[in-house]
Amino acid sequence: MSLQLGQIIDALGGSLEGAGRDTEIRRIAPLDSAGSGDLAFLSNPRYQSQLAASRAACVIVGPGMRAAALARGGCIVADDPYAYFARLTQLWVRAQGQGAPAGVHPSAVVDAQAQVHPTACIGPLCVVERGAVIGAHTVLKSRVTVGERCSVGARCILHPGVVIGADGFGFARQQGEWIKIEQLGAVRIGDDVEIGANTCIDRGALEDTVIEDGVKLDNLIQIAHNVHIGRHTAMAGCSAVAGSTRIGAHCTIAGAASIVGHLQLADNVHISTNTVVTHSITKPGQYTGVFPMDDNAKWEKNAATLRQLYKLRERIKALEQTLKDG
Amino acid sequence: MSLQLGQIIDALGGSLEGAGRDTEIRRIAPLDSAGSGDLAFLSNPRYQSQLAASRAACVIVGPGMRAAALARGGCIVADDPYAYFARLTQLWVRAQGQGAPAGVHPSAVVDAQAQVHPTACIGPLCVVERGAVIGAHTVLKSRVTVGERCSVGARCILHPGVVIGADGFGFARQQGEWIKIEQLGAVRIGDDVEIGANTCIDRGALEDTVIEDGVKLDNLIQIAHNVHIGRHTAMAGCSAVAGSTRIGAHCTIAGAASIVGHLQLADNVHISTNTVVTHSITKPGQYTGVFPMDDNAKWEKNAATLRQLYKLRERIKALEQTLKDG
Amino acid sequence: MSLQLGQIIDALGGSLEGAGRDTEIRRIAPLDSAGSGDLAFLSNPRYQSQLAASRAACVIVGPGMRAAALARGGCIVADDPYAYFARLTQLWVRAQGQGAPAGVHPSAVVDAQAQVHPTACIGPLCVVERGAVIGAHTVLKSRVTVGERCSVGARCILHPGVVIGADGFGFARQQGEWIKIEQLGAVRIGDDVEIGANTCIDRGALEDTVIEDGVKLDNLIQIAHNVHIGRHTAMAGCSAVAGSTRIGAHCTIAGAASIVGHLQLADNVHISTNTVVTHSITKPGQYTGVFPMDDNAKWEKNAATLRQLYKLRERIKALEQTLKDG
Repeated sequence: MSLQLGQIIDALGGSLEGAGRDTEIRRIAPLDSAGSGDLAFLSNPRYQSQLAASRAACVIVGPGMRAAALARGGCIVADDPYAYFARLTQLWVRAQGQGAPAGVHPSAVVDAQAQVHPTACIGPLCVVERGAVIGAHTVLKSRVTVGERCSVGARCILHPGVVIGADGFGFARQQGEWIKIEQLGAVRIGDDVEIGANTCIDRGALEDTVIEDGVKLDNLIQIAHNVHIGRHTAMAGCSAVAGSTRIGAHCTIAGAASIVGHLQLADNVHISTNTVVTHSITKPGQYTGVFPMDDNAKWEKNAATLRQLYKLRERIKALEQTLKDG
Repeated sequence: MSLQLGQIIDALGGSLEGAGRDTEIRRIAPLDSAGSGDLAFLSNPRYQSQLAASRAACVIVGPGMRAAALARGGCIVADDPYAYFARLTQLWVRAQGQGAPAGVHPSAVVDAQAQVHPTACIGPLCVVERGAVIGAHTVLKSRVTVGERCSVGARCILHPGVVIGADGFGFARQQGEWIKIEQLGAVRIGDDVEIGANTCIDRGALEDTVIEDGVKLDNLIQIAHNVHIGRHTAMAGCSAVAGSTRIGAHCTIAGAASIVGHLQLADNVHISTNTVVTHSITKPGQYTGVFPMDDNAKWEKNAATLRQLYKLRERIKALEQTLKDG
Repeated sequence: MSLQLGQIIDALGGSLEGAGRDTEIRRIAPLDSAGSGDLAFLSNPRYQSQLAASRAACVIVGPGMRAAALARGGCIVADDPYAYFARLTQLWVRAQGQGAPAGVHPSAVVDAQAQVHPTACIGPLCVVERGAVIGAHTVLKSRVTVGERCSVGARCILHPGVVIGADGFGFARQQGEWIKIEQLGAVRIGDDVEIGANTCIDRGALEDTVIEDGVKLDNLIQIAHNVHIGRHTAMAGCSAVAGSTRIGAHCTIAGAASIVGHLQLADNVHISTNTVVTHSITKPGQYTGVFPMDDNAKWEKNAATLRQLYKLRERIKALEQTLKDG
């Protein structure tokens, strides 16, 4: 498998300099490990020092790096080298002709009353239940479940083990026991959504759980019933959103962050790794709450003090009073 | 699909006032979005302000809200409106006639030496291994694994992707390598247990992992080997219990909380979201340990101070001594 | 099923004292619940008090406990009783003749271009994609996916629900939307690796994600793209490693710990439960960062103070200055 540089710029644009159109590219590779048949990219200025030493046949760079790149050898100059690289990986996969084939794998179990678009791909050992709808060009990799009446839009990718439409966790407590609240809602997923392996999105209790267009969810994420996630929000692995919380558009939720239930997060809110969001956020910005890691001995001393922190405050107050009185 | 109010009170009790027995209910809906064919409920006093404006055909309320509800229109008065609502959702599902069908789906792989009750439902692409026992009216949705010799009681629901009886994580370290300890125990699950999507319950090392009657587990939960969870305890999504820990009855473990191994938790212990339980708890109550979220800049200042917290304590001590000496 | 003590020491070594070679062992059991047909072990000195009262037919002990064990009854003296016990569990399983059978279960979906070693076991409802390689004596339990071009070494165990080779979470942001970066790398897993239920290991973006020999991963773990985990490192349940991080050999990562992306961890680093590793670690040792749990009322007081911690520091500084000036 190879592509010529000319084919690449014909498909993706950018200006090719210092290398021939017929140069064969056999691999897309990181700048530092690229060899003579490889195409690399430089977008993060942090890696600029690797440029001169790179053995790549060609490097994708932004306009500001054109001179430095040309001094080394061939380059493709593009306005946004990282986005260019992303599109290049897509071109590469198309050129390999190995996209997911349309149709339902014979081992999948698709209910007769499900609607699967003819261009969709339902992979091996998937389950698509009664009344579920799968949009055009959407791919269910393998071992994906889409439950009753749930809908998945167009051009979505659901990775192995994903569960859409399990029951939300709803019970009424009576005399110390839990009475199940049947979950009568469904899950509605927009277009261009990607959902990582073993991620779960529960159906709503009365109304639907909603994932808007362009949302990207990583692996092992928990989305509880009646959550609403706005357009183009991205959540990293092992994060979780509790019931009825509404997250805005263009948010990022870092890995293992948790958002408790019944909150509202504005658009453009960014939650740091492992942060627990316990109240609504109305202003865009970055929010954090992580216990700083330390060597264990130092942590133990700090943690012991932390358990008495409010007493420290009282001691300071007393000192201040003494000095004021004295 | 619809039910008349008369059918509902005949099945569930409560007193119908201000609306006719033959009123057709087409949907159970939230108070604020309910329309003229809908039945809503009000249990949390927080939502009382929504009552007057609701367009629902009928609202389920407690005795204390009877007058206010009647001033608006039809109502069902019930002692515990939330439990009534829960039972109503169950009635609704039964009336739809869409419960899980008894029997083994042809795509499931059930060992000849497994015992599946004739009223149980083994859904598509499930695996039930040798010696496993599945109780009456229990439902394995789709893609559930129940491992060798594990037992699941009656009226349980196991959601897609659940894994019962994978090996516990047991190794002996010798010369820097790990020697596997075969896990010879099993998993025993009581009656009326519900287990959320992709949740894992490992088999015991020598004796069994035990989940007692009425326990409710949400999605993506990890229950390690030889854990014992008492009756009617509920655990929310992404929580985890490490090996050999024993949790009492009627506990609640909030989302993403962790309980380390070899602990004992009393009955009626409630663990807050994301809290790490590092020692046994003998007294009922609510326990918490979460770093408070803040905007990132403020968090950074506080975190930097936290790393030096024990030194702050020493400085306060020195100040106190100086003042005392002076 | 039973084994005679003579068979056990013939297979595993150790010296049998105070009990006959022909003593029948019907179960391996914990010291405190062992009965007259049972073999128990004592390795942790913490449980030494249980020794005298144990009703076990025989107890595996270290040389230092020989006298105390003989005073009670039969014992096997072994240099490392815990490792001896581990090997005994393996012998037990072999004696039962119930290991995983070589071959591909008829319900599994194995691509014609995958390479599965004839001694490997591909369990029910597994998926092995094109170009994947499964090594000798490796067992894929049930419902495991091994993606395109990914390789799993010899003598590995992959528990139900494991997903190897889902796409890494890679996107370029452009004008507020996410452009997918196709993940062109694969996953390479060494020999003697065990991977717990529903754990996910993503394929690399350009190069491979690598899990070295002897690594042990528990359930519900997330390994992101291009992570590298060194030999004999063990990670407990619900832990997570973000992209491109490199973990050394012989590390232990406790449950629900998180390691952010692009870090380096040296060999012999030990991360405590729920700790968030936010910077590289160059020195072996134990590292911790967990908010200490307390009863909720006390936590609230401490958390409120913590939000103002840097102000406390300033107040202390001011006090120090006042005293110095005074």
